[in-house]
Amino acid sequence: MPVDDDFTGRLGIELPIVQAPMAGASGVALAIAVARAGGLGSLPAAMVGSEQLAGQIDEFREATRAPLNLNFFCHVPPQVSRVQLDAWSESLSRFDTEFGVDRSAASAGPPRQPFDEDACQLVERSRPEVVSFHFGLPAPDLVDRVRATGAVVMSSATTVAEAVWLENHGCDVVIAQGAEAGGHRGMFLTDDVAAQPGTMALVPRVVDAVAVPVIAAGGIASGRAVAAAFVLGASAVQIGTAYLLCPEALISPVHRRALAGGSRDDTVLTNVFTGRPARGRRNRLVDELGPMSSDAPAFPAAGGAVAPLRAAAEAAGLGDFSPLWSGQAGVMTSDVPAEELTRELMVSARAALADAAGRTVQSG
Amino acid sequence: MPVDDDFTGRLGIELPIVQAPMAGASGVALAIAVARAGGLGSLPAAMVGSEQLAGQIDEFREATRAPLNLNFFCHVPPQVSRVQLDAWSESLSRFDTEFGVDRSAASAGPPRQPFDEDACQLVERSRPEVVSFHFGLPAPDLVDRVRATGAVVMSSATTVAEAVWLENHGCDVVIAQGAEAGGHRGMFLTDDVAAQPGTMALVPRVVDAVAVPVIAAGGIASGRAVAAAFVLGASAVQIGTAYLLCPEALISPVHRRALAGGSRDDTVLTNVFTGRPARGRRNRLVDELGPMSSDAPAFPAAGGAVAPLRAAAEAAGLGDFSPLWSGQAGVMTSDVPAEELTRELMVSARAALADAAGRTVQSG
Repeated sequence: MPVDDDFTGRLGIELPIVQAPMAGASGVALAIAVARAGGLGSLPAAMVGSEQLAGQIDEFREATRAPLNLNFFCHVPPQVSRVQLDAWSESLSRFDTEFGVDRSAASAGPPRQPFDEDACQLVERSRPEVVSFHFGLPAPDLVDRVRATGAVVMSSATTVAEAVWLENHGCDVVIAQGAEAGGHRGMFLTDDVAAQPGTMALVPRVVDAVAVPVIAAGGIASGRAVAAAFVLGASAVQIGTAYLLCPEALISPVHRRALAGGSRDDTVLTNVFTGRPARGRRNRLVDELGPMSSDAPAFPAAGGAVAPLRAAAEAAGLGDFSPLWSGQAGVMTSDVPAEELTRELMVSARAALADAAGRTVQSG
Repeated sequence: MPVDDDFTGRLGIELPIVQAPMAGASGVALAIAVARAGGLGSLPAAMVGSEQLAGQIDEFREATRAPLNLNFFCHVPPQVSRVQLDAWSESLSRFDTEFGVDRSAASAGPPRQPFDEDACQLVERSRPEVVSFHFGLPAPDLVDRVRATGAVVMSSATTVAEAVWLENHGCDVVIAQGAEAGGHRGMFLTDDVAAQPGTMALVPRVVDAVAVPVIAAGGIASGRAVAAAFVLGASAVQIGTAYLLCPEALISPVHRRALAGGSRDDTVLTNVFTGRPARGRRNRLVDELGPMSSDAPAFPAAGGAVAPLRAAAEAAGLGDFSPLWSGQAGVMTSDVPAEELTRELMVSARAALADAAGRTVQSG
């Protein structure tokens, strides 16, 4: 009984809800929980090794017969000069004394692997029903090999031009990622952060511009927003931040605390954590070096110099240097398990639709 | 047969559509056209003298018995130093030779009057059914006098905190203005442009936070978006940009051309035209001095130094120095009269709701 045969019927899921793959913040437990509710569970590959990812896929398959989405970044690893890295490190070193950081021992930062030969072979072996990409698409031959496995290919568009490009380059489904969305922008044809359109403006225009099904993402953390996305013409929604307070999420205590408290109207797009614009709550690093810094080395190289400060601050219970990714809707529920939250979102989405339709019919 | 008694019933309008008052871009013809369709027509007061406004009110009253919204800015006129004005003028003078501008003869720029004693007396005499404000609210005694006339008082909130503040300071209706909206942001408790939430994220949170009816604004230029706003919990929508290609709009030929062509995903919030952040299409002035410039004198003083360049460029058929205000949804229809457009938006909104509700009911 799919809501929209275009999407749910094709994938064999019951609910038109995609759990956003959130590298570093979600793993197999969240994917399984959402899949059990009837949504699409997603495993983010960017920050785990292929062996670990293979283990997670096995775990998912043992837990449920529901379809699985494997998500990959497809950035081109940058050539960053030693000079730029040193300059960035230098600008961060002003905080070192306060946090007792020894920068000479600093690491390369958390790895963020792009989709490559290894990852493609893993897809060919493990046969996920859906493969989604972020930051465009990988090289055409890799896209072809993924498509040859029968996987539904998806990627994120942040403008109408990106949506049309994705459709023309082999995407079966386009995720229209409005500016409200937390975490990294999927933008790949533009670097104009200031012009990124919001979900309300983006989704209907993308729906008009492409023939493939559209998933709405960004600012969707309540049943009302889920329903609104369907009304805008989306075949499904992708939800991220709303799951971050679920017990299945993997975020740090400082991140959890930031999401649970304070004003939600303080998220900004910042590149100071990774080199790419991503939406998170304002904190000390964002305020002092960002939100957008032209000094930040290209993604993901900016993360290296931040890593030791983040570790030291988190050890002291502070989120001053941690990416506190969050969408603009924040978390609208408290500590509910993800399976229950997924069902609740759909129930309240249906109620919101019926309510609005009822009011409109009365008005004749 | 109101769609939502909270709002349409109280105002005596037939359709839950408010025509956005757009100072400099809309006048009495647009207000009358929308009122005739059953929506709420609005007259922007900020850029016309009180005598001219009184004449427009008379014209509106002769044309229709529908209710009227008078809209006022309520900024505090700034104290800007000669030094800052000269510096701003100097930074703009780099374009003077190219456009043959004689800056020694430069004017003070277009006036933008805040709500004051004069305006309040006009409200007391003319008794508009609705008085809306932008940039917060005027002094409490003025708000009280407006309320004493029986007018419904509205103002715009760009964050949840602003919405709560407006409700606590005498607003009968809150306009939740998402970041997608064209023209000036109504922001008044924050100057954090980067953190302005989109409509999808803002509206449901404002609806939860206040007891008064909420009007959704920003990114609403199609029936689907109108319907989505109702689903988000709004009692009505406010629509601006979508009316700008109507024959009743007063925009310049360069503005009309910009809205009709090019990519719509190039709007940014900029303060270079007036000193306050407002959303418009990128053009030369935005690219070269903005989008946000810390050198721009406070609203509305930045406009003075821009005025002669704008005039000279427009005379040459160029919009390089004109504010090309536009929301992120742009214009989704062509040159349709405003009365027809208003009815069409509501018809397609109902269709979008019925369609989405139908799909959801099938899914059981």
